[in-house]
Amino acid sequence: MKIGILGTGMVGATIGNKLLQLGHQVKMGSRTANNEKAMKWVSENDASASQGTFSDAAAYGEVVFVCTKGEGTIDAIKAAGADNLNGKIVVDVSNPLDFSKGMPPSLYPALSNTNSLGEEIQKTVPGAKVVKTLNTMNCILMVNPTMVPGEHDQFICGNDEAAKAAVTDILKSFGWTSIIDLGDITGARATEMLLPIWVRLMMKFQSPQFNFKIVK
Amino acid sequence: MKIGILGTGMVGATIGNKLLQLGHQVKMGSRTANNEKAMKWVSENDASASQGTFSDAAAYGEVVFVCTKGEGTIDAIKAAGADNLNGKIVVDVSNPLDFSKGMPPSLYPALSNTNSLGEEIQKTVPGAKVVKTLNTMNCILMVNPTMVPGEHDQFICGNDEAAKAAVTDILKSFGWTSIIDLGDITGARATEMLLPIWVRLMMKFQSPQFNFKIVK
Repeated sequence: MKIGILGTGMVGATIGNKLLQLGHQVKMGSRTANNEKAMKWVSENDASASQGTFSDAAAYGEVVFVCTKGEGTIDAIKAAGADNLNGKIVVDVSNPLDFSKGMPPSLYPALSNTNSLGEEIQKTVPGAKVVKTLNTMNCILMVNPTMVPGEHDQFICGNDEAAKAAVTDILKSFGWTSIIDLGDITGARATEMLLPIWVRLMMKFQSPQFNFKIVK
Repeated sequence: MKIGILGTGMVGATIGNKLLQLGHQVKMGSRTANNEKAMKWVSENDASASQGTFSDAAAYGEVVFVCTKGEGTIDAIKAAGADNLNGKIVVDVSNPLDFSKGMPPSLYPALSNTNSLGEEIQKTVPGAKVVKTLNTMNCILMVNPTMVPGEHDQFICGNDEAAKAAVTDILKSFGWTSIIDLGDITGARATEMLLPIWVRLMMKFQSPQFNFKIVK
C-alpha cells in the first residue's frame, strides 16, 4: 500500500520503517521538501522510501499517518491540504502536549477535555476519515507490542467503521492482538487524556517500556 | 480508628460499611445533621456508625474520606472547616466530573489539566495532608479488589509521605496489593484525567467491573 507520513521525527521514522518492513511504500512529508531528517531516512532505506512536502506525502498516501508534534499537527494538516486528504484514512498518532511550562506537560486546553486533537483534525479535513490510535505509548512499542511482555491494549476510535477496520488490520500487522474500539472520534478525548499519567509513569519508571491494560 | 466520611451517597456508604467491617468507628457527615441517607445508614449499622454535619465528621475523624460529588467537594471541605482538618489525613476519592452536558461527562476546566480536585482541596486546607486515591474505579471495587479478577492497580499520590503510608495501610486492609505511588498531590491531575476513558469503557462494557493495570 502507498502510505504517507506527516512528520520526520522519531515517531514518523519508526512507523515508516515498520511499514517498509511490511512491504509498503512510504513517503515521509515535512514542511519543506528535502528536509534533513527526511533525506537521512530515505538514504537509509530502499526505493520504497521517499520524501517530500506535507502536501506531497498526503497526495501520495492511500493512508496518511499524522506523526507530528501536537503543537504542529493542525498546521501540518492544513499544509497537507484538504483536497489531498479527501476520502482518505488519516491515522492520528499525535498528542496535544504543551511542554512550554516544563515536565510533566499539560494538554492544550483548546484541544482537550471537550475537544481533542483527533477531533480538531476531523474538523479541519471533514472529508477525511480520521482514526485515532497508537498515541498512548512510546513509538517503539507502537510497532513492536512484544516490547512489553504479556497482554496489554491498543485503543482505537473514529467516525468511519470501514476506516477503523482498515487501520485495525494495520495494527494487527504491527503485532497488536488486543484492540479496544472506543467509538467515534470523540474517544480521542479519552485516549489523549491518558498522556498525563503516561508521562508521570515514564518519569517514575525512568522507562517508556510499559503499557495500559484494561482488566475485566 | 475514628474515621470521618464527607458525603452520604453510594461511595460514602460503601467505604463506610467497609471501614465498619474492619473494626473502625465511622461518622458520616452531610450538609445538615440528620440527613435522610445518613440516618438510614446509621440505622443499618451498630453503634460504631454515627452521623452529623460535615464539620462533625471532620472533627471526629483522625482520617477523613472525601466522598462527595466533585461539584460539591470544595464546599464540603469549607463546611468541614480548616480547623477540624488541620494536621489530619484527608483521603480524596472524588472527581471533578461535569455532567451538565450529559454523558460522557467532561472535567471542570478550572479543576483539571493544570490543576485537580486533589490539589484544590490541599490549597483550601493547607494544614491537612491530602492523599488522592481510589478515584479511578467504581466504589464496590474500591473496597473489594477481587471484584475484578487477576492483577490490577490502585494509584496514590500526596505531598506527605507518612500520610501516604498510613493510607496505603488502609488500602491494603481493603485488599489492595498493587499500589502505584505517583508522587506529590499534582499526580491527582493524572488520575482524575483517567475518568474520561473510564466512563467511555463503562458505557462500552455496560459494566463498571474493570480496572486499569500498568503492564511492564
